[in-house]
Amino acid sequence: MAHKYPAELNTLIAHLRKLPGVGTRTAERFAFELIRWPRDQLIAFGEILRGIQEKMPPCDTCGSLTQLRTCPFCHDPERNKRQLCIVASQRDVFAVEETLLYKGLYHVIEHLLSPLDGRSSEQISIERIKKRIEKEKTEEIILAFDSTLEGDTTALYLRGELQSLNLSISRLAFGIPIGSSLEYIDGGTLARALRDRQTF
Amino acid sequence: MAHKYPAELNTLIAHLRKLPGVGTRTAERFAFELIRWPRDQLIAFGEILRGIQEKMPPCDTCGSLTQLRTCPFCHDPERNKRQLCIVASQRDVFAVEETLLYKGLYHVIEHLLSPLDGRSSEQISIERIKKRIEKEKTEEIILAFDSTLEGDTTALYLRGELQSLNLSISRLAFGIPIGSSLEYIDGGTLARALRDRQTF
Repeated sequence: MAHKYPAELNTLIAHLRKLPGVGTRTAERFAFELIRWPRDQLIAFGEILRGIQEKMPPCDTCGSLTQLRTCPFCHDPERNKRQLCIVASQRDVFAVEETLLYKGLYHVIEHLLSPLDGRSSEQISIERIKKRIEKEKTEEIILAFDSTLEGDTTALYLRGELQSLNLSISRLAFGIPIGSSLEYIDGGTLARALRDRQTF
Repeated sequence: MAHKYPAELNTLIAHLRKLPGVGTRTAERFAFELIRWPRDQLIAFGEILRGIQEKMPPCDTCGSLTQLRTCPFCHDPERNKRQLCIVASQRDVFAVEETLLYKGLYHVIEHLLSPLDGRSSEQISIERIKKRIEKEKTEEIILAFDSTLEGDTTALYLRGELQSLNLSISRLAFGIPIGSSLEYIDGGTLARALRDRQTF
């Protein structure tokens, strides 16, 4: 029923529709809530959207979110420059950081390969990754991708491109997630966990 | 893991968290998508949020969304001023309009009664509704509320307050929704549809 709304409201709904997983109904619901927010909160929200990209541009080197225009990884002398963790999004950097187990560098490729969605290997600047490996004298590459078809495709592609460089290349382990019951685990995961079973 | 993010990003996530049905995870997902939007789109989105309340304030009389600062209902001489449809939100006005069956006026009470959520009858300005009825010489009140406990409570409250005014008061009919199979209809709805069965 969007066509009945005032033009401004339709514009707001159109913006909200672009958020991941948000359909017309949800966007309408968000919009009608937003226009009832306290005025100062709505203005603050609008301000931050307008300015956030300028305040936190991606790092020129690794693509991570910068803070105060300085990449917290590339500029940290404590990080191990021999390790390079390749991830698909800036958010995944935070997920890996949260483990507290990794102290190397990152490289954000922005998206996984997905030929069906028109995301082909030409969109991953492999030359930039290779130059970085050469410059940093990287010894180990960790591929931290989703365990999906797109993640698998991207991991295989990068392994193919990088394996001649005499590096150790690894990928996140597959298996049953912590805290789960076997009865709820899908067959593919269980098969993988069984195949990759570990000495205990 | 929100505490690990840069301050600007946390602020953005906090705003998104306030949208209905959006938890921390979804807010984070929205935020990481937003910061990758094309700059001009993000700025346009921010601009519209900043300005929308000023451009579409609620009508002083009925609470509907105005367009170009003019209420499309209160100022339309074609609308039947003897009918007043009371709804709980500006969005519901559009839902009723969409039926093309109603040509009277509206009154938006902003929220349904919900004692558990601290929304009591004091927050519905009943005197304003009574004055409006007197001024417009309203003959018929239509209560267009959700068929929930809150909708029922609000309808009962308004009927109690308004029934001495010698008006016709009706509420939206209950029954089985169009296009549904009986096997999927809950018992309460079916009982109501049976009780209110109509000559055919």
